[in-house]
Amino acid sequence: VDLAEIAARTPGFAGADLANIVNEAALLAARKGRDTVEDQDFSEAIDRVVAGLEKKSRILSGLEKERVAYHESGHAIVGEVLAPSERVTKISIIPRGVAALGYTMQLPTEDRYLLTESELHGKLAALLGGRAAEEVVFGELSTGAANDLSRATEIARAMVVDYGMSRKIGPVSMAKERRPSFLPGDYGGGREVGDRTADEIDDEIKSLVERAAERARETLTKNRAVLEALAKGLIESEHLEGAELRKILDGVRVAGIKDPYRELEETAAK
Amino acid sequence: VDLAEIAARTPGFAGADLANIVNEAALLAARKGRDTVEDQDFSEAIDRVVAGLEKKSRILSGLEKERVAYHESGHAIVGEVLAPSERVTKISIIPRGVAALGYTMQLPTEDRYLLTESELHGKLAALLGGRAAEEVVFGELSTGAANDLSRATEIARAMVVDYGMSRKIGPVSMAKERRPSFLPGDYGGGREVGDRTADEIDDEIKSLVERAAERARETLTKNRAVLEALAKGLIESEHLEGAELRKILDGVRVAGIKDPYRELEETAAK
Amino acid sequence: VDLAEIAARTPGFAGADLANIVNEAALLAARKGRDTVEDQDFSEAIDRVVAGLEKKSRILSGLEKERVAYHESGHAIVGEVLAPSERVTKISIIPRGVAALGYTMQLPTEDRYLLTESELHGKLAALLGGRAAEEVVFGELSTGAANDLSRATEIARAMVVDYGMSRKIGPVSMAKERRPSFLPGDYGGGREVGDRTADEIDDEIKSLVERAAERARETLTKNRAVLEALAKGLIESEHLEGAELRKILDGVRVAGIKDPYRELEETAAK
Amino acid sequence: VDLAEIAARTPGFAGADLANIVNEAALLAARKGRDTVEDQDFSEAIDRVVAGLEKKSRILSGLEKERVAYHESGHAIVGEVLAPSERVTKISIIPRGVAALGYTMQLPTEDRYLLTESELHGKLAALLGGRAAEEVVFGELSTGAANDLSRATEIARAMVVDYGMSRKIGPVSMAKERRPSFLPGDYGGGREVGDRTADEIDDEIKSLVERAAERARETLTKNRAVLEALAKGLIESEHLEGAELRKILDGVRVAGIKDPYRELEETAAK
Amino acid sequence: VDLAEIAARTPGFAGADLANIVNEAALLAARKGRDTVEDQDFSEAIDRVVAGLEKKSRILSGLEKERVAYHESGHAIVGEVLAPSERVTKISIIPRGVAALGYTMQLPTEDRYLLTESELHGKLAALLGGRAAEEVVFGELSTGAANDLSRATEIARAMVVDYGMSRKIGPVSMAKERRPSFLPGDYGGGREVGDRTADEIDDEIKSLVERAAERARETLTKNRAVLEALAKGLIESEHLEGAELRKILDGVRVAGIKDPYRELEETAAK
Amino acid sequence: VDLAEIAARTPGFAGADLANIVNEAALLAARKGRDTVEDQDFSEAIDRVVAGLEKKSRILSGLEKERVAYHESGHAIVGEVLAPSERVTKISIIPRGVAALGYTMQLPTEDRYLLTESELHGKLAALLGGRAAEEVVFGELSTGAANDLSRATEIARAMVVDYGMSRKIGPVSMAKERRPSFLPGDYGGGREVGDRTADEIDDEIKSLVERAAERARETLTKNRAVLEALAKGLIESEHLEGAELRKILDGVRVAGIKDPYRELEETAAK
Repeated sequence: VDLAEIAARTPGFAGADLANIVNEAALLAARKGRDTVEDQDFSEAIDRVVAGLEKKSRILSGLEKERVAYHESGHAIVGEVLAPSERVTKISIIPRGVAALGYTMQLPTEDRYLLTESELHGKLAALLGGRAAEEVVFGELSTGAANDLSRATEIARAMVVDYGMSRKIGPVSMAKERRPSFLPGDYGGGREVGDRTADEIDDEIKSLVERAAERARETLTKNRAVLEALAKGLIESEHLEGAELRKILDGVRVAGIKDPYRELEETAAK
Repeated sequence: VDLAEIAARTPGFAGADLANIVNEAALLAARKGRDTVEDQDFSEAIDRVVAGLEKKSRILSGLEKERVAYHESGHAIVGEVLAPSERVTKISIIPRGVAALGYTMQLPTEDRYLLTESELHGKLAALLGGRAAEEVVFGELSTGAANDLSRATEIARAMVVDYGMSRKIGPVSMAKERRPSFLPGDYGGGREVGDRTADEIDDEIKSLVERAAERARETLTKNRAVLEALAKGLIESEHLEGAELRKILDGVRVAGIKDPYRELEETAAK
Repeated sequence: VDLAEIAARTPGFAGADLANIVNEAALLAARKGRDTVEDQDFSEAIDRVVAGLEKKSRILSGLEKERVAYHESGHAIVGEVLAPSERVTKISIIPRGVAALGYTMQLPTEDRYLLTESELHGKLAALLGGRAAEEVVFGELSTGAANDLSRATEIARAMVVDYGMSRKIGPVSMAKERRPSFLPGDYGGGREVGDRTADEIDDEIKSLVERAAERARETLTKNRAVLEALAKGLIESEHLEGAELRKILDGVRVAGIKDPYRELEETAAK
Repeated sequence: VDLAEIAARTPGFAGADLANIVNEAALLAARKGRDTVEDQDFSEAIDRVVAGLEKKSRILSGLEKERVAYHESGHAIVGEVLAPSERVTKISIIPRGVAALGYTMQLPTEDRYLLTESELHGKLAALLGGRAAEEVVFGELSTGAANDLSRATEIARAMVVDYGMSRKIGPVSMAKERRPSFLPGDYGGGREVGDRTADEIDDEIKSLVERAAERARETLTKNRAVLEALAKGLIESEHLEGAELRKILDGVRVAGIKDPYRELEETAAK
Repeated sequence: VDLAEIAARTPGFAGADLANIVNEAALLAARKGRDTVEDQDFSEAIDRVVAGLEKKSRILSGLEKERVAYHESGHAIVGEVLAPSERVTKISIIPRGVAALGYTMQLPTEDRYLLTESELHGKLAALLGGRAAEEVVFGELSTGAANDLSRATEIARAMVVDYGMSRKIGPVSMAKERRPSFLPGDYGGGREVGDRTADEIDDEIKSLVERAAERARETLTKNRAVLEALAKGLIESEHLEGAELRKILDGVRVAGIKDPYRELEETAAK
Repeated sequence: VDLAEIAARTPGFAGADLANIVNEAALLAARKGRDTVEDQDFSEAIDRVVAGLEKKSRILSGLEKERVAYHESGHAIVGEVLAPSERVTKISIIPRGVAALGYTMQLPTEDRYLLTESELHGKLAALLGGRAAEEVVFGELSTGAANDLSRATEIARAMVVDYGMSRKIGPVSMAKERRPSFLPGDYGGGREVGDRTADEIDDEIKSLVERAAERARETLTKNRAVLEALAKGLIESEHLEGAELRKILDGVRVAGIKDPYRELEETAAK
């Protein structure tokens, strides 16, 4: 077992999480009648802990499988190009957990306590990469991106109301204190503000997410061949990781994609 | 008993649902003094589980029966034409359950985990098909479409606030987390947004539903003969299914109905 | 006892309601020292169950009695002319129940499960008939129409937000799910919408009710003689029903009153 | 004891109220060492039940006593002139109950179940009569009218949102059902409406109350001599009733005060 | 002990309050080893009951002590000039109670049950006198006026929404009934009104308070010498009362300060 | 042990806080096997009580450590220049407590009960100093300033709604009474105001914070050399205090930074 590999795939995990993984791995090995726990057991154990149990009964039709494959490939390629401080380590289109039809694991190369503005722009684009792939390849959207949009909107909202990263809203914190939600009168985030500011916050969030969507589409259009290769690989083997995954992803073209941060700065400077 | 037929009519049913149906079918057969459970018992059992008990005391007057027949025929024809990924398998104008005066069963041809944009546009139109038939045939509306409108509005709202399918609102998730409704301050969907965005969301929902209503009317106008045949058949026998239903429905003209998705794309492209 | 008559006056009554009426009738007969229950006992028993006990202590002054007589006559005449699918069977100006100073019983000729748009327009006008009579006869309003306005507004609201009967709002359901009112954050009907839509809904409700008020006034102006006859009869005998009532009501002129539905359609067509 | 007089001063009183008064009167007579209950005992007993105990410790200064005398005289004169369906039977400037510094008893001449539009306009003006007297006599207002304004606003609101008496708002009921106030989400009256309607309701309420204030001022200006006589009488004897009161009040000039109802009608007619 | 003096300093005190003061005074005398309670014990006892215990540990720095001295002098002078119906009886800059750094005792010359408009304008100005002194003397504000502003805003709000003293809002009561605050949906004061009215109320409150602030500044500028004398006296002896205080305060110039009430009237008259 | 030093570093501490520090210091000395408590123990004990335990497991990467060093240096320099009534006594980039990655201790030179307007402007700028340093040095922001922005916004809000320090909002208190948050209907600060005022409050808060951000950037640009020296020192030794810290900080240039208070006054005067 390659402990360095396991460590690299579990950054930010607490001791209890690791114990949980070792336990799962031992059970999996035992279930397969083996005496020793092997690398593949750890790999599957990590997937279980991160993304939930495989749902064998959830069998995708051919068209849906194809769509999910392109969707996850979109996440992976945009993440690789625009969020390079994290590394894509695995892609799978085996349904898992409560609702996921596929997942892309992207891990930071070291423990992080701060995120910069451009890293957040990259995360936004990577989250929108799945939707962008569906647009680019099938010409229409599906319901599969709902969770991605929800997470992207949350990040964009935090950039605007918590981190002061909108030049229009300024270095003001618009977030209400996040009191536990069982307290009446606690509306979650935002809205302790006047109507005009609420509209401006909406505009800024929309602008951040739309810009990220555009970058994701641009990235995928420039990397269409890699997208096809990745999706084809996924449809064939249902998951990709390690050297096999790297080989395809190392082909991405990085140059020449728009940089929203630089644009914003230039706009602000005018 | 044709198990394939039963399976085709019960997609997405869990084991417990199927057991429930078998049980109901056995009871129905027993009540009729038969030793064996027959096809018709299963058919009735499925109807009971899906739509509730027949309400024999709820006797429709002649005019109401006629209106319900055209209403359900409208759902069936629009569904057949604009939502072809699901198959209309049964229409009934026997009142059932708590409030329904009739129902149209439209089933997917395989288990589905994703829905595409054009499938959702088709679903919207099918839901508005009953109302459209009342407009086209009687020239005025009735209270019978309230539940259809409620479901159509929910789908249109989800397209706009959850799935990012409105080009105007963009790939932003406007839905609040759906916390259980016993928590104070939880307003259900939407409205963590500014006033202007709230107005834009309303516009987009209205636009999606109105477009669907227009397509439904257009479909029924082009298929008036099928509509008359279907309604006449329903008034006579109170329900239609299997070959009898297929024979009438196979006459629909599909060509030339507006495609809202293409229109939206063209508008966005300008 | 004429059972057909009793049946005609109790449409939609459940078995328990009927049992209740029989019981009341028996008590009334017994209280009057009779051995047999007669027609008049059933008539009074139905009134009690529908409208509550007579309030003998609530003695109206001459002016108030006159106003109530015209008010109820207004309901009856407008109902007879504009809501003909229900039949006016009784008018009374004997105070009953918690608050009513008079009442007009208008019953459908058969059990109904659907209402058409024009039937709802008729109901609105009938509800506003009492107020219209006060305007036409006395030239000023009173507090006596508050409950009528409340019910009319509820119907108009449902036409706009539940039944999609406003061409301006469209086939969209604006009603929140009607969760039980003990849940915090449940505001009853409406308002999960943006401010502009909320204003448009108000406009449409107002427009529907005002149009109905105009039709009610028009109907009463054209039928002033019947109004006077009915009010005079009521002031004399305090209630009217059966042949006596029919004789007066059969004199109404129906032709030539505005038809709001046709107008709306024509407006929409332009 | 003049029972007719007592009856005239206690319209709308239930049996328990009357028993309460008799009891109070007996106690008062006993306290004064008399064997028989006299007219004055009943008079004081009615005051106690209606307005609360005299507060002997609440001693008004000279200036305050004068202001209260003019304030109550204002209520009485405007009521006499503009709300003639009720009769002013007593005025007092002896502090009573929890907060009142004086009170004017105005009673209907018979039990009432309906109020007409012009009667409500009269009630509004009478409520504003105290404030108007302070304006006319002292040239500036005081805090003493707060309760009058609150009651006048409630009446004006009901005219607009419950009784359909505003031509601008129309025959629409804007009042939410008045659910008991311990239910969350129940905001009391109003506001289930859009913002524009809410503004229009405010305008109509303000317009009704301001018009009433103008009529009250006009009435008092035209009856300045009666106002002075009444206030002077009150400052001397602290309360006025019966023949003494009548003698002064019978001098009021009624003619030529503006009639808001007629104005509204004329405006609406244009 | 001068009982008249004590009575004059405790208007509106109930018997229990007076008993409390006598008790405190006895304890203070006992603590100082005296057999008889003297005038100074009563004075300190009244301070304790009204303003709380002296906080000896809260030692102000030189600059803060100076600021507090001018602040309290500002209250005293503006109160003396613009709210003459109450008499300034004591000023102290010894920190007391929970938060106060100083206090100015201003007492009515007799028990009051009504306040006139001009008295309320005077109270507003007196409350803003502390802030005005800081502006005039130091050229910048401090956090010390927060409580004054809160109380002034409450008074101004009551003038507008409870007492009908704004000519723009009119004689309408905008205050919601002040139900206890543990009831959900009870927002405290105001806001059962439309948005435009809410804005107008804000404008009127702001206008009243700003006008009062201007009068306070004007008063202090015209009485700068008295302000300096008072502040100097306070810095030296930490509290001023009786003849010593009177001697300084009697020097104020009263003539020629703006009268907001007259201005308002003149504006309204145009 | 230098008690004066400890006292200077613990202004505003209650007896219990001091006892807590002595206790912590004793434990730290004991843990290091020493018999006497030394200066360094007290220093660490104060840090623990003020900022929480060191988090040795939270190891920052090189880039993050550099960013945190510049961030904390920014706070220190801007505080030193623009908030001189408090003294920077210690800077640390050792992660502590729940979330902090570094902290700057700035202590008042004496106990304070009032803060002036210009002191609050200085505090705002010091809070924004960390963010400004990130902008000036790295050209982009990070998530590390979220807590600073939240605190700065709270101060700016209090200046506007509690202390009347906005010339636009005026001497009006816009803050709702801060009832405990478990009461329904209690929205925390603000918003008992109309929509226009809410927008104006937002504008004023934004304007105060943006002005402070500009001053912070200006200060750091003019003191770039000190910023580099401080950050370099911190990266090397992870914390700076005492003479070492003073030596670097004493090099700051104070002259010529904008004074927002004077600007505001000048604007108001126009």
